[in-house]
Amino acid sequence: MNSIHETAIIGAGTRLGEFAVIAENARIGQDCVIGHHVVIHAGVQLGDRVRVDDHAVIGKLPMKALHSALTHDAVFPPASIGDDCLIGTAVVIYTGCTLARHVFVADFASLREQVTVGEATIIGRGVTVELKVTIGKRCKIETEAYITALSEIGDFCFIAPEVTMTNDNFMGRSAERFEHFKGATLARGARVGANATLLPGVTIGADAQVAAGAVVTKDVPARKIVVGVPAKVLRDVPTAQLLDQQGWE
Amino acid sequence: MNSIHETAIIGAGTRLGEFAVIAENARIGQDCVIGHHVVIHAGVQLGDRVRVDDHAVIGKLPMKALHSALTHDAVFPPASIGDDCLIGTAVVIYTGCTLARHVFVADFASLREQVTVGEATIIGRGVTVELKVTIGKRCKIETEAYITALSEIGDFCFIAPEVTMTNDNFMGRSAERFEHFKGATLARGARVGANATLLPGVTIGADAQVAAGAVVTKDVPARKIVVGVPAKVLRDVPTAQLLDQQGWE
Amino acid sequence: MNSIHETAIIGAGTRLGEFAVIAENARIGQDCVIGHHVVIHAGVQLGDRVRVDDHAVIGKLPMKALHSALTHDAVFPPASIGDDCLIGTAVVIYTGCTLARHVFVADFASLREQVTVGEATIIGRGVTVELKVTIGKRCKIETEAYITALSEIGDFCFIAPEVTMTNDNFMGRSAERFEHFKGATLARGARVGANATLLPGVTIGADAQVAAGAVVTKDVPARKIVVGVPAKVLRDVPTAQLLDQQGWE
Repeated sequence: MNSIHETAIIGAGTRLGEFAVIAENARIGQDCVIGHHVVIHAGVQLGDRVRVDDHAVIGKLPMKALHSALTHDAVFPPASIGDDCLIGTAVVIYTGCTLARHVFVADFASLREQVTVGEATIIGRGVTVELKVTIGKRCKIETEAYITALSEIGDFCFIAPEVTMTNDNFMGRSAERFEHFKGATLARGARVGANATLLPGVTIGADAQVAAGAVVTKDVPARKIVVGVPAKVLRDVPTAQLLDQQGWE
Repeated sequence: MNSIHETAIIGAGTRLGEFAVIAENARIGQDCVIGHHVVIHAGVQLGDRVRVDDHAVIGKLPMKALHSALTHDAVFPPASIGDDCLIGTAVVIYTGCTLARHVFVADFASLREQVTVGEATIIGRGVTVELKVTIGKRCKIETEAYITALSEIGDFCFIAPEVTMTNDNFMGRSAERFEHFKGATLARGARVGANATLLPGVTIGADAQVAAGAVVTKDVPARKIVVGVPAKVLRDVPTAQLLDQQGWE
Repeated sequence: MNSIHETAIIGAGTRLGEFAVIAENARIGQDCVIGHHVVIHAGVQLGDRVRVDDHAVIGKLPMKALHSALTHDAVFPPASIGDDCLIGTAVVIYTGCTLARHVFVADFASLREQVTVGEATIIGRGVTVELKVTIGKRCKIETEAYITALSEIGDFCFIAPEVTMTNDNFMGRSAERFEHFKGATLARGARVGANATLLPGVTIGADAQVAAGAVVTKDVPARKIVVGVPAKVLRDVPTAQLLDQQGWE
């Protein structure tokens, strides 16, 4: 049994689980597999061969806290999910998100409004991507990593489990802070190790590497490894690990 | 289609999503918006103009593990959610919780039994608040922070993403530990930076600040900034960031 | 109202919530309590007196990302949940998992395929256990800890909140990495403190202890405490905290 709005369009060969909700003007492509208790909100566009697992919610409308610093009441275009994407159990994708083809979003991940994700990128289990974040193609963002608002993640980046990013050096105080909110910038091929912390506005250079547990307080040069609290340059990234040695393009 | 118990009371102007479950003696105020697949357990009290998003569960009964140290079989008063609260997708609020007005609970957050939350406080995405925690008004507790049992968080506190608090110096060993369980105490206006760790029983003084990535092993004096592993006093909090400079009251 | 496949078997005294889905050939024991919107996938075996809370999903089939390193298309035996287990709200347990009796899985925890869990172990709120992990009996794995793939956790281990484990020293680069994936090994009674980070392949010795916030880069000897970034031996674990002093066996 389902609740499908009369204006929703569901492509040929698509299967729906039980108790799914498909709202007005949603459009689901062909040969999709939609799990049980899935909610597809109004206007969402799903490509072909998309798998959406049980309890996922796509197209959520933002909520605005009484004293929120960044969420606005703007109207966003509907969420758009490319062909061959995999959307895990209990994933929450907000309105205004755009996922390219072959994106993998693991269970419990959240993508806030105005997030774009490039082709074949993996968003790990429980990852939070806050609003206004751009993520390139073929990245791996691993379990429970936290991508703060206003971040830019280039192509081929690797973000290990439990990484934390920040965007407010003023920790919620002083009017001055509103001029300085800035997330992390990861250049093409940058890699950040497990449980590392990035302070507001830092840039991790192309193919650079942040060691596990490091606390990064300033920019990291391209192709360098940084370690420690606070993080300091240790040495060059080994040649065998450089992006242009992987044969990926 | 919904499952609404015949004893439940639903106020005028309140809208329900599909496949919601409203149990016996639940009382929902006026002009609320209840999402799809929401579960409101027995006896829960919701104020007026509350928004509850898809898959949220309010009024969950505790589960007791075979060797749990802190969970008891007590009976608690029903969960009570104040007027104008926003309850996100898949949030889980246990029985015995009390939320004041205008509280914002983001997606996937958990509030265990006997938690109280003050007016206009923001509980971030995926935050865990364990049992017997008191949180003041107008706090911000950010994404994936972990508030251990038996903690006290004052008014106007700021807790950054992925902060970890602890309450057991004995790490689960020795009978002696049962006399020493103690969570964190954050005095009014205290702030804790991203991915910081607080050892059991520490107090963060009024308007004090813990830097990102710090490991706090002892009490932090009021209006001081501490940094490092283990955390040491660096300098005073800048005047422009002090609570009494914000014009909030 | 429920969706129960005609081939599913449900034991005497078992109660089902609303909008639950029980798929083909699932077998649920006697006197179980199954919450609202629960999904029990095909073939899952539940013992007697199991409690499964709202929105839990048991028996999920893996999803394979386009460039996944470890997930294969193998067929696994159905998930098996022992007698007297407690399965929390929105828990996700994959196919091929085996839980012994009296296991407690708190809200939002995930157990991937080929995970085995010993008797009376507690898996905390939001914990991720990746694929091919073995966990012993009577362990406590606390809130939001991350257990990487290919890890081995002995009996009586304690893993504090927000601990991060890793298994890839090459951070996703070089073909060489496929020969070196190795998770953490925790010997019997090992304990890891809050927000600590374990580098790939480290062994924590029997009854050893890792301090909160430590970054462990090499093996830890039995019965020693290590602290810091990188972690170094500080002293012996106090006798009163040793496993053989607890009277647990």
